[in-house]
Amino acid sequence: MNPEVLLSRIRVVLCRPSHPGNIGAVARAMKTMGLSDLYLVSPRQFPDPEADTRATGAVDLLHRATVCDSLKTALAETSFAIAMSARQRDLGPTIGQPREVVGRLLAEAADGKVAMVFGNETMGLSNEEVIHCQAAVCIPTNPKFSSLNLGAAVQVLCYECRMAAYSAQPPVGGHLATPAASPRATQEEIEGLYGHLQALMTDTGFFNPKQPGRLLPKLRRLFGRVGLERDEVNILRGILSSTQARTGHGRKGDLS
Amino acid sequence: MNPEVLLSRIRVVLCRPSHPGNIGAVARAMKTMGLSDLYLVSPRQFPDPEADTRATGAVDLLHRATVCDSLKTALAETSFAIAMSARQRDLGPTIGQPREVVGRLLAEAADGKVAMVFGNETMGLSNEEVIHCQAAVCIPTNPKFSSLNLGAAVQVLCYECRMAAYSAQPPVGGHLATPAASPRATQEEIEGLYGHLQALMTDTGFFNPKQPGRLLPKLRRLFGRVGLERDEVNILRGILSSTQARTGHGRKGDLS
Repeated sequence: MNPEVLLSRIRVVLCRPSHPGNIGAVARAMKTMGLSDLYLVSPRQFPDPEADTRATGAVDLLHRATVCDSLKTALAETSFAIAMSARQRDLGPTIGQPREVVGRLLAEAADGKVAMVFGNETMGLSNEEVIHCQAAVCIPTNPKFSSLNLGAAVQVLCYECRMAAYSAQPPVGGHLATPAASPRATQEEIEGLYGHLQALMTDTGFFNPKQPGRLLPKLRRLFGRVGLERDEVNILRGILSSTQARTGHGRKGDLS
Repeated sequence: MNPEVLLSRIRVVLCRPSHPGNIGAVARAMKTMGLSDLYLVSPRQFPDPEADTRATGAVDLLHRATVCDSLKTALAETSFAIAMSARQRDLGPTIGQPREVVGRLLAEAADGKVAMVFGNETMGLSNEEVIHCQAAVCIPTNPKFSSLNLGAAVQVLCYECRMAAYSAQPPVGGHLATPAASPRATQEEIEGLYGHLQALMTDTGFFNPKQPGRLLPKLRRLFGRVGLERDEVNILRGILSSTQARTGHGRKGDLS
């Protein structure tokens, strides 16, 4: 596939960025590597002149950036997302090295939109945000000083994206046991499944929303790592619906 | 050779940098990747509070940086230097890709000090400066917008240095396989899940054993590729059981 098309399908999502200057640096880093789709989840301050200054010739990306208030919204339409994370999270996807994880990202981009998700400068991503992603990546750093600047981290991963997109040998993920029988499900479709499952489990009393424990994250971990196809989501939701019809409950729609 | 020793032998030389903020960003980029030897040739303004701010926890590199007035002086003691250059110069060394050129740099570092040389933000390196170097490197960029920030360029090359230095052994960070939250399920346990699922689907009418179609193989394909853990099988069977209890059917046991 045309490398420019692949790169255009990679969305960069910044969750709760604190410094407008970093947002500008991110836009510049993206554009130098051929990426253009920027999402900002609850930025502390945006738009801002400092963002424009640091973006230099990439202000067009800032003007076209989408601002929203949840990672879930930012990942709509994408079928695969990687979380930048310095540490392994409980129930989160396994952390891989940039070259390997970006290879997988590019392989997924052949099928549709994908995303790279970065956390706040100080706090990084929350566990909840990481669990929304199907893979996680950590840029190897000096253990005595691992404080990568946000713009610098985005630059490194966008660079790896460009290298992978233009490598003679298209990166292959090696994660698909079988060629996909149906297109990948979108995040929206997968969220629909989670909502449906949660509604059913609440009905039957298996899940108590007042004492949620770790049940939902465990289910996200399970279905997150499989790479669900659209047909599979439909089958699973068909099973859930048929069960609800039987118990006399109509389909409750999506809760979450 | 010890990767940390190799990295400590790589000097970063900035020729005539204009913006103190970029000098700070370079120090931070270097330190995150384990480099520490910074030379500044005729900086426009240094030291400067803006450099300290952007360096964050890498101000020690700024305080130890060597300021001099010619590239020749900055390259003293080094046996090999690479020039960052966006274009091929007359009589200059052939421009290579980062991974290839950095590989060569690391091989040379086994024998002694080496350097990476970066030009002024606007003008780059002069021809004269490039000719002082034994190799040249260009970071591939979007031809429509190739304006890499100086700090970002240093970050990418220092990252490649770290990756190359640790290529013989996994770099720190991000190489840990996720500890499975629970042991892998046995085939028997997984077959138990399939049987349970089939029983429920038959009860609700979603599955008709007389016209099985491709439903069961599709479910096997889905759960087969995820590598189910024992806890996950128990959760899924718990959901199924709670649903059956609700419909008034007891657990039917395994059918298949």
